[in-house]
Amino acid sequence: MIALTPVGVVRGGRGVVVDDYWGDSRATIELADHVPTESLDGIEAFSHAEIIFFFDRLDDTSIVTGARHPRGNTAWPRVGIFAQRGKARPNRLGATIVQIEKRDGRTLHVRGLDAIDGTPVVDIKPVFAEFLPREPVRQPAWSHELMRDYWKREG
Amino acid sequence: MIALTPVGVVRGGRGVVVDDYWGDSRATIELADHVPTESLDGIEAFSHAEIIFFFDRLDDTSIVTGARHPRGNTAWPRVGIFAQRGKARPNRLGATIVQIEKRDGRTLHVRGLDAIDGTPVVDIKPVFAEFLPREPVRQPAWSHELMRDYWKREG
Repeated sequence: MIALTPVGVVRGGRGVVVDDYWGDSRATIELADHVPTESLDGIEAFSHAEIIFFFDRLDDTSIVTGARHPRGNTAWPRVGIFAQRGKARPNRLGATIVQIEKRDGRTLHVRGLDAIDGTPVVDIKPVFAEFLPREPVRQPAWSHELMRDYWKREG
Repeated sequence: MIALTPVGVVRGGRGVVVDDYWGDSRATIELADHVPTESLDGIEAFSHAEIIFFFDRLDDTSIVTGARHPRGNTAWPRVGIFAQRGKARPNRLGATIVQIEKRDGRTLHVRGLDAIDGTPVVDIKPVFAEFLPREPVRQPAWSHELMRDYWKREG
């Protein structure tokens, strides 16, 4: 077993769990009390960061360890939980690349974070272009269909 | 506190911790006994996956929670641990995008995983192009210099 301690928490953003329309999402990450302020020094030199967070609102009984249709949509193939990005997964970790808007002391302002208010953050990593895929990305049609409205704006 | 259970382990690859020359790195991820085989079904439709793993060889005393020069190199600025990707970080999580070479039952063959033999894996997420940066990536000069030999081949 591995024990993690949150290093921060998501504030603002959306208050409820929804699948789509994260395009307008602005939120802040507030450092936890035990983390020094200087842990964020220099982060504004990066345009993007990856936020690793914990889906704390999910209870254990909803976790899928095998396979399922993504979003329960039977028009899409039944695939393993490690072939999809749904949140009801073992260890309940999310990992999302966000735009860094501003760093203000112990607060990081971000855009495009698909985590709701109060979500515990377990890591913040700056995005290096050298760690992005260095070859063309191939993915199945269902995954493009699933993402169709994900980054759209609400309303 | 958040408790994670490894879902797999890294096999093969390199046996020792080094900073650079990961270009030849081929490894497998073997599912843990409690994880069903079908959790990997359909993953071969994706070219890349992000592996989230735990730097288990690091002891607690080496963790940096504030700021330091990346790799101890004073030619580079002293920046916060969340403005660098070094492994001696709070919660000791690594997150690396790899190429998927083959899935064989409970084994995933990958390329470009910068984790050593025996490293616990806590999540496997398929790479969706829609979750990569949708804007140009900006990063400081030191981070490009640090990555200069990272993906080169050994020797």
